[in-house]
Amino acid sequence: MSKGSPVGSHRVVSPAGALPQAADRLDPDPEIADDEVRISVERLNLDAASYRQLHTSHGGDGDAVRAEVRAIIAQRGKMHNPVTGSGGMLIGTVDAVGPRSPLGLKPGQKVATLVSLTLTPLRIDDGLMRWDGNSEQVPTSGHAILFARSIAAVLPDDLPEHLALAVLDVCGAPALVRRVVARRPHATTTVAVLGAAGKSGSLSLAAARDAHAAKVVAVVRDEIEDAQLRGSGLADDIVIADATDPLRLAEKVNDALDGRGADVTVVCVDVPGCEHGAILATATGGTVVFFSMATSFPAAALGAEGLAADVEMLIGNGYVPGHAEYALHLLRANPHLKDLFIARVGKEDED
Amino acid sequence: MSKGSPVGSHRVVSPAGALPQAADRLDPDPEIADDEVRISVERLNLDAASYRQLHTSHGGDGDAVRAEVRAIIAQRGKMHNPVTGSGGMLIGTVDAVGPRSPLGLKPGQKVATLVSLTLTPLRIDDGLMRWDGNSEQVPTSGHAILFARSIAAVLPDDLPEHLALAVLDVCGAPALVRRVVARRPHATTTVAVLGAAGKSGSLSLAAARDAHAAKVVAVVRDEIEDAQLRGSGLADDIVIADATDPLRLAEKVNDALDGRGADVTVVCVDVPGCEHGAILATATGGTVVFFSMATSFPAAALGAEGLAADVEMLIGNGYVPGHAEYALHLLRANPHLKDLFIARVGKEDED
Repeated sequence: MSKGSPVGSHRVVSPAGALPQAADRLDPDPEIADDEVRISVERLNLDAASYRQLHTSHGGDGDAVRAEVRAIIAQRGKMHNPVTGSGGMLIGTVDAVGPRSPLGLKPGQKVATLVSLTLTPLRIDDGLMRWDGNSEQVPTSGHAILFARSIAAVLPDDLPEHLALAVLDVCGAPALVRRVVARRPHATTTVAVLGAAGKSGSLSLAAARDAHAAKVVAVVRDEIEDAQLRGSGLADDIVIADATDPLRLAEKVNDALDGRGADVTVVCVDVPGCEHGAILATATGGTVVFFSMATSFPAAALGAEGLAADVEMLIGNGYVPGHAEYALHLLRANPHLKDLFIARVGKEDED
Repeated sequence: MSKGSPVGSHRVVSPAGALPQAADRLDPDPEIADDEVRISVERLNLDAASYRQLHTSHGGDGDAVRAEVRAIIAQRGKMHNPVTGSGGMLIGTVDAVGPRSPLGLKPGQKVATLVSLTLTPLRIDDGLMRWDGNSEQVPTSGHAILFARSIAAVLPDDLPEHLALAVLDVCGAPALVRRVVARRPHATTTVAVLGAAGKSGSLSLAAARDAHAAKVVAVVRDEIEDAQLRGSGLADDIVIADATDPLRLAEKVNDALDGRGADVTVVCVDVPGCEHGAILATATGGTVVFFSMATSFPAAALGAEGLAADVEMLIGNGYVPGHAEYALHLLRANPHLKDLFIARVGKEDED
């Protein structure tokens, strides 16, 4: 395999003409094209919505979850959950770099891939034997392929690997939130983040503040998450509400914002059914940014129409130039945010 | 039923707390609340994606399609296709208006509902006996309910009913295209419309021109559609390409735009799998507006990320203030556009 397509279409087995993300099956041949990079895989980080679906559909049986993930990778040549349509990311070490690769990587560098596993050719060689099926973090070995038009971040030296990985996994969110908030008037723009205690949620809070939002409201699920955010300084107000209960959610966001909806509402709740609440919680002329992979396109489009809601709705693009550096910068600049992430990802990588 | 919720949540039978669009089942009780309106239904206009799915899944058997639509309405209290998640719209005559309805309607007015059938309480009383199951247009009788926060357009006197209905069905598209194009620099903004010969597509072409786009490219499926648009003046260039073949599509759009992608790409193709082509056909910093109900949220989000594409992706909101008037204005102002619509909807309502 010497000539590659920059977007990886030469790796598509079926259907013909598809791009890798839309493909049923990819070819994970370890031989790389001139512009490809081969990664020696160390760990997969499954997308939250994907892991939740697998865990739920097998009633929490880790062995069954493991068997299904193994089967998906073997059948598809990538870790692309066929139910949720989502994947995740991986970390590993650069193993081989084609002479025409534009990614600037060198063999031996430890990297995280910032493109989804749904389009990354992957072969594992250990049967996932070191994973118990009960965590999104999957230690494994094998190889993965990066195309010319791809993205990988070299892991920073000053942060533990798990922590950097957790940040990079969701780094598109804060970059897009910053952009959306910053183009509105600083003095008046209000932001509500649904699922604010999670990874993309807490980074989005920090990005909204960094972009000079006038008021940032964190919406969390329960008292535990409330306590996690209290005192962090990441939000001006914290509201406990079920994001899937549209009327109550909108009422509580309105209460926190003096009777108005939010100018920017950011959806980071990885469960279905948050579209209508987000729309109702947003002011006329405002913007909803959907980052959750559980978002339903028709529910959002028809919901806004049905509510006669003049809001702009963005599909959260995981790529914004400079997103990895920006997310890591936010973490370094906010000790409270870093503490939240450390509490979340645990101390797993101190070994 | 005397007190209504403006968004219709009092009509939700299950699940509790849902809004009507997300509900499994609505209560189509003909007795209206103070702020509701009852419509005497004359015709349903099924969403294109919904009709296509029904037609395909029954192998084109009209009787089976009819039976399934009847069953959906009976079971759900609304015409909400459970597979596609989409509905359509209806026309009828205002039958009763609650004293606190803010919609400004009067009994006897002929109207089209501009909110989706997926959230409109509906009961039919003729078993769909006048419909052969072989068209999106479903003549029927029965009643439907509009809530306080809803939208209906009084049908204009100067246009045939079928024509007005066809325009109003997709009126959100041109209004949003105008907004997105108009906020970019007039002198340089290029627009590509995928599915340009269809209803929302041809209106989007007209809106892009009206918003002073520098160049408008129509992407159509075949020579027949090419011939339909040729000479209409709606597009500066017409390109024949399969919108589900991303690499070829992007290549052809680039060829039409001197090697660049479009600044604004509008997706009006009602088949799955157009996300990646639309993203690849769009310039860095550009905007993709997805109007097709067949759009997959994860395919768009992960596709853009996987292609490292810095594009903004909008979920096509069917509601923009003034959308009905604007779409009708475009039709009246563009004789060629009107001809296209007439050719499309046929002469059915000359009786």
